Amino acid sequence: MTVELSLRSQKRTELIDVTLQIEKALPQSGTGYCRFFVPHTTAGVIINENADPSVAEDISDYFSKLVPHRQEWKHTEGNADAHVKAALVGTTTGAPYSNGKLVLGRWQGVFFCEFDGPRSRRLILSVSPDK
Amino acid sequence: MTVELSLRSQKRTELIDVTLQIEKALPQSGTGYCRFFVPHTTAGVIINENADPSVAEDISDYFSKLVPHRQEWKHTEGNADAHVKAALVGTTTGAPYSNGKLVLGRWQGVFFCEFDGPRSRRLILSVSPDK
Amino acid sequence: MTVELSLRSQKRTELIDVTLQIEKALPQSGTGYCRFFVPHTTAGVIINENADPSVAEDISDYFSKLVPHRQEWKHTEGNADAHVKAALVGTTTGAPYSNGKLVLGRWQGVFFCEFDGPRSRRLILSVSPDK
Repeated sequence: MTVELSLRSQKRTELIDVTLQIEKALPQSGTGYCRFFVPHTTAGVIINENADPSVAEDISDYFSKLVPHRQEWKHTEGNADAHVKAALVGTTTGAPYSNGKLVLGRWQGVFFCEFDGPRSRRLILSVSPDK
Repeated sequence: MTVELSLRSQKRTELIDVTLQIEKALPQSGTGYCRFFVPHTTAGVIINENADPSVAEDISDYFSKLVPHRQEWKHTEGNADAHVKAALVGTTTGAPYSNGKLVLGRWQGVFFCEFDGPRSRRLILSVSPDK
Repeated sequence: MTVELSLRSQKRTELIDVTLQIEKALPQSGTGYCRFFVPHTTAGVIINENADPSVAEDISDYFSKLVPHRQEWKHTEGNADAHVKAALVGTTTGAPYSNGKLVLGRWQGVFFCEFDGPRSRRLILSVSPDK
């Protein structure tokens, strides 16, 4: 089963907690595995701490420092750094689920990683129920 | 279903667009999910923009700068940097497919990331049709 | 099928080869795909060389240099760097398996990446047998 989520980023670089939005789209009973796929080239998806919001800010700030927005890039659309950041964090991850909840660690949440916002974005869920 | 692709890199560091090669190996009808697995320790696989080839060059150039080829490494085979780059980009990713095509975003393609070429390389596809 | 592995790290930053521990938990006959999921926010999982142990040390040392432990972070628990490292390497990967063995490349092993140890940790395996 494939489900498409829509979201909207507000800043150029931003980690958006999409855990609850994903869980609303999961089968409310049964177990399985859900893959999260980002169909964009300047965004990614990670799983990290969502208890203290400063963790997501530290991650976002770190990527902004590691890959400079303004420097000599061959790609001239002004977002080459966002492509590199997407390559570093990756466009797919996933987690097991059970009865409408992701089976995450105690402090984990799923974050859509915006590196070239603000924009309308999509996240594709591929849900594989256990046999 | 598992399918093994063969490819050949031409440079030490190079992103090779393997989207069409993957799609030729997919089932030509039906939907499902395809995982891409790199059975090498100095190469990786990512999904990023394949419309403007300068994006792949920027990503490749960035990794070359971020992880220096020549510095003090414990591993003495001269390719420790390539192992680190493989750890950063990862050896697995994947995407949904439908009727012989990957269901990618408009600008996305799949890139085999060579960090210690030129060499003959393999990419293993694990195809899971929807039930 | 879901299997939970337990492990214990000995250092703050450490790559632990968990290949054999995973293979003991796999079905001893049949083929399929196994996903490895880290339910922690300061650890990750990668596949890289386990033939020469200096490769894992180079990777571990590199991450320690790339993301400084002590600097100005917003998250004040002293492990913000570990969250960033987990975001860089990722919390999920996987590989095909066959008859109780991971179908890895010749030099590959699976490493649990500890970035905030020493601690007791878990690794969740999601095993999908081929149909």
